[in-house]
Amino acid sequence: MTAVTNQTLPTALDLPIVDPLPPETQKYFDICVEKLGFVPNVLKAYAFDIDKLNAFTANYNDLMLGDSGLSKLEREMIAVVVSAINKCFYCLVAHGAAVRQMSGNPQLGEMLVMNYRVAPLDERQRAMLDFAAKMTTASTEIEEPDRQRLRDVGFSDRDIWDIANVTGFFNMSNRVASATAMAPNDEYHAQAR
Amino acid sequence: MTAVTNQTLPTALDLPIVDPLPPETQKYFDICVEKLGFVPNVLKAYAFDIDKLNAFTANYNDLMLGDSGLSKLEREMIAVVVSAINKCFYCLVAHGAAVRQMSGNPQLGEMLVMNYRVAPLDERQRAMLDFAAKMTTASTEIEEPDRQRLRDVGFSDRDIWDIANVTGFFNMSNRVASATAMAPNDEYHAQAR
Amino acid sequence: MTAVTNQTLPTALDLPIVDPLPPETQKYFDICVEKLGFVPNVLKAYAFDIDKLNAFTANYNDLMLGDSGLSKLEREMIAVVVSAINKCFYCLVAHGAAVRQMSGNPQLGEMLVMNYRVAPLDERQRAMLDFAAKMTTASTEIEEPDRQRLRDVGFSDRDIWDIANVTGFFNMSNRVASATAMAPNDEYHAQAR
Amino acid sequence: MTAVTNQTLPTALDLPIVDPLPPETQKYFDICVEKLGFVPNVLKAYAFDIDKLNAFTANYNDLMLGDSGLSKLEREMIAVVVSAINKCFYCLVAHGAAVRQMSGNPQLGEMLVMNYRVAPLDERQRAMLDFAAKMTTASTEIEEPDRQRLRDVGFSDRDIWDIANVTGFFNMSNRVASATAMAPNDEYHAQAR
Amino acid sequence: MTAVTNQTLPTALDLPIVDPLPPETQKYFDICVEKLGFVPNVLKAYAFDIDKLNAFTANYNDLMLGDSGLSKLEREMIAVVVSAINKCFYCLVAHGAAVRQMSGNPQLGEMLVMNYRVAPLDERQRAMLDFAAKMTTASTEIEEPDRQRLRDVGFSDRDIWDIANVTGFFNMSNRVASATAMAPNDEYHAQAR
Amino acid sequence: MTAVTNQTLPTALDLPIVDPLPPETQKYFDICVEKLGFVPNVLKAYAFDIDKLNAFTANYNDLMLGDSGLSKLEREMIAVVVSAINKCFYCLVAHGAAVRQMSGNPQLGEMLVMNYRVAPLDERQRAMLDFAAKMTTASTEIEEPDRQRLRDVGFSDRDIWDIANVTGFFNMSNRVASATAMAPNDEYHAQAR
Repeated sequence: MTAVTNQTLPTALDLPIVDPLPPETQKYFDICVEKLGFVPNVLKAYAFDIDKLNAFTANYNDLMLGDSGLSKLEREMIAVVVSAINKCFYCLVAHGAAVRQMSGNPQLGEMLVMNYRVAPLDERQRAMLDFAAKMTTASTEIEEPDRQRLRDVGFSDRDIWDIANVTGFFNMSNRVASATAMAPNDEYHAQAR
Repeated sequence: MTAVTNQTLPTALDLPIVDPLPPETQKYFDICVEKLGFVPNVLKAYAFDIDKLNAFTANYNDLMLGDSGLSKLEREMIAVVVSAINKCFYCLVAHGAAVRQMSGNPQLGEMLVMNYRVAPLDERQRAMLDFAAKMTTASTEIEEPDRQRLRDVGFSDRDIWDIANVTGFFNMSNRVASATAMAPNDEYHAQAR
Repeated sequence: MTAVTNQTLPTALDLPIVDPLPPETQKYFDICVEKLGFVPNVLKAYAFDIDKLNAFTANYNDLMLGDSGLSKLEREMIAVVVSAINKCFYCLVAHGAAVRQMSGNPQLGEMLVMNYRVAPLDERQRAMLDFAAKMTTASTEIEEPDRQRLRDVGFSDRDIWDIANVTGFFNMSNRVASATAMAPNDEYHAQAR
Repeated sequence: MTAVTNQTLPTALDLPIVDPLPPETQKYFDICVEKLGFVPNVLKAYAFDIDKLNAFTANYNDLMLGDSGLSKLEREMIAVVVSAINKCFYCLVAHGAAVRQMSGNPQLGEMLVMNYRVAPLDERQRAMLDFAAKMTTASTEIEEPDRQRLRDVGFSDRDIWDIANVTGFFNMSNRVASATAMAPNDEYHAQAR
Repeated sequence: MTAVTNQTLPTALDLPIVDPLPPETQKYFDICVEKLGFVPNVLKAYAFDIDKLNAFTANYNDLMLGDSGLSKLEREMIAVVVSAINKCFYCLVAHGAAVRQMSGNPQLGEMLVMNYRVAPLDERQRAMLDFAAKMTTASTEIEEPDRQRLRDVGFSDRDIWDIANVTGFFNMSNRVASATAMAPNDEYHAQAR
Repeated sequence: MTAVTNQTLPTALDLPIVDPLPPETQKYFDICVEKLGFVPNVLKAYAFDIDKLNAFTANYNDLMLGDSGLSKLEREMIAVVVSAINKCFYCLVAHGAAVRQMSGNPQLGEMLVMNYRVAPLDERQRAMLDFAAKMTTASTEIEEPDRQRLRDVGFSDRDIWDIANVTGFFNMSNRVASATAMAPNDEYHAQAR
């Protein structure tokens, strides 16, 4: 049995956080506490090795917060739909909260966690999430008509790159979180309900 | 129909490489040509945006070339087994060549591409690849006994982190490559046969 | 696209509620409003035909509220785990709320919705939920050792009957709810967070 | 190994029939013997608790024998197709016999047991069975176009409700029968061949 | 819609039988009529090309009727279990009849068609059918312990060869029959009920 | 663990080759050595029983080398696509080499081994391989429109028979090879790279 809560470490692996943290990292963590009220456990999980932490955050911040034709909410929507298929507890809790918060629509967050097909989406967002779902379950079957469907609802080739990379990223992080029994911070659960 | 060869761009997306490349990137590409004889198309694919390219290579180089209890060959073996499950043409071609080359055993590369269960592996490597395969197909079912099996054949918790992250990485890059119809460089095919 | 909210009817089918309701049914609905604050949409969905409504509620009340060696919370836990496998939005919303409320543990409700394997369950409840999950995905493979595992953790044959029937019931109602786009009442979402 | 025949009880669970049966139940069983030649084992299985038996038969009789736009044969056809997907021995034997008998076409019964796609069905019945099959294997993917296809071949919304509920019912009873190793009465096998 | 009955040809393909048949073939067909009452449609299907017919019957007769540590009934049992997984109407009808006839146990034939796990098999036959089932659904996962389990219940390596080849044969013929909509002779249905 | 190389026998089964071989068989093997440089292990595997060997080769030679509207290369392409789905090491190695050699296009061989959807195929060959893939994974779902799609791109009914039978054959031989751990000859690996 794997109980992912009540762990003193952020994962089931015995990988203690670097102590003391380098000043840059400490500063980054302090900003998290200030803005979110806590340091997300995924960051603590990587903080046994500062190079790995930095590679992860550079990648994450570029994808989820950088310039894109996709809104930040849309990128979080992809995160939740991919995590729902992979049944990743950590990512569903953290990114489900983000969708509830950013959309101001708690039900949308729940729908994407439970079955995105029931959500009242416009054609563009539905096509985006269908592509993310197919990439997650059957990437080998993606062919030109799948990309064309995205272009037909208004996405540029650069947008398609971003959809593919956000989808890819959560297929990575879902698996790392599940494989290491990463526990989400308790604070997420009651947010934006 | 998606023909991934004979593309003038490295993927099916119209995302031209930054021109001219920044000097650091140009230097990196020149080193590739010198060492490998060519610039891997995955790098050209990301080179429409230098920040994305840098985030990708930092992540890749840390995982595949950085310090680890896993040998570089073992990391490539994981790459091939994950890519075989996801049927990613790009990654099978590129990392299959790497396994053939690093192992000096062309048949091992073929076995991992075709069905890793037929390869004559020791207990440690078989456990490592079974974990990678389960993470790829059923990450949600990984529990403590799965991690313990890795410890029982000699892997440390840090090694388990690395197995999980290499496996996660190729679950990301397989999907990005398939979703964008990324074409492998022709040079890989005849290498180390 | 199926948007299950903002429907004036409880499902996507045009089946208006009997009007006026028979006095017994009206009284039952009034009790719902008094106790829960609303009439669950599943009852409104069946209320186009009072015989069908009565057959459904007799079945439901016997299973979920009648005498059993399973606690009411345990029966709700099965409901959520089955509904998570079948990705039934209606049942996950309504019974997820019930688990949060009855257990006083909002995280438990979320874990069962997202991936029951991460929940810190005792051996008895884990065996119960594993049986429910196997019945849902591969009932044809259940054999005597599966039943014996339940007996070994303390369940009687009568308890096994109840586990099987609660699991069966939600495999029915999940499918009816999904097939008719049944919309859960808005009130569930914020309950017991 | 689970041998479902030669059991002295109707299932693998030790749940003896109430003895003596209440007069109403005894009368119902007597009618079964008179009409069918035997009491179906599913009724004996529930008869350890008369309330459960009554809830089951009320539900069953309303669905399979009550007023509906679906003929009784059509409801049995759904029963067999659902049971074939779930590989439920009890239900295939009992309802396969019903299809052979009601249709006067032994081959139709066999086709629905073995692969309904080979049966020479009209457009209406094929659509009905395709919907039942999709509800059984992928209910979460049912959306408005699936319901519309049923309307297009002449089904009313009330008919769709009935298709959904008959399909749901056998997804319940298949699982209960398989989970408890319910044995079909021997008499079914040779009927209407 | 594919209706496999009432076809004037044995399959959905327009491939007329060689006319007149060569004397040897005619004699073989005459023996079929004498012994079985009809020429099995599978033979008529191949009879557009006598070389193909001969290669098929040589293969079939060697496997199903030749010397083997498996009884003829056991080989028919494998045929039915494989055909049930592949849901091949032709083969289930023809070989289900053979099992009923050879075993003198109509219920055994039905059990193997519907779900072989419910049949009261001894350890040897259960192991044999589990191996055939795994070869059919996941041949790539067969490893030495699977073969050893067969040896442990008394099969020789030659017997394992025969199990593998009978299983392989029906994985071929099931697919050919389904792909061509091969119709079984009506006579099978009522045999040995 | 199953290591399929370094076996002194062609499979994991202890079934020694008939010694001495009958003159006809010896002559056939000598021709193999002359033409290919070696006797394919699949022939050695069957050579413990000359009748079985002859039935296999008659079947194989008729299908792969006999008259057909499919070119020999096209038949080998089917062999590789089917073997890739079934992950059969023996057949992928042997028939992958054949595709590389016959096509003069090493990349085509690799594409068919790894993911045939990325290969630059014309409409006819793509339809042929899609049919073979569907027959391999879901033969029970093949209906008239699948056959019609083949006719629409120019295949005759006789060609469809050949596609079905080549596909069926490799669904047999893949399973026999995997179930017996058949090892491919080393010589294939470096051929036609």
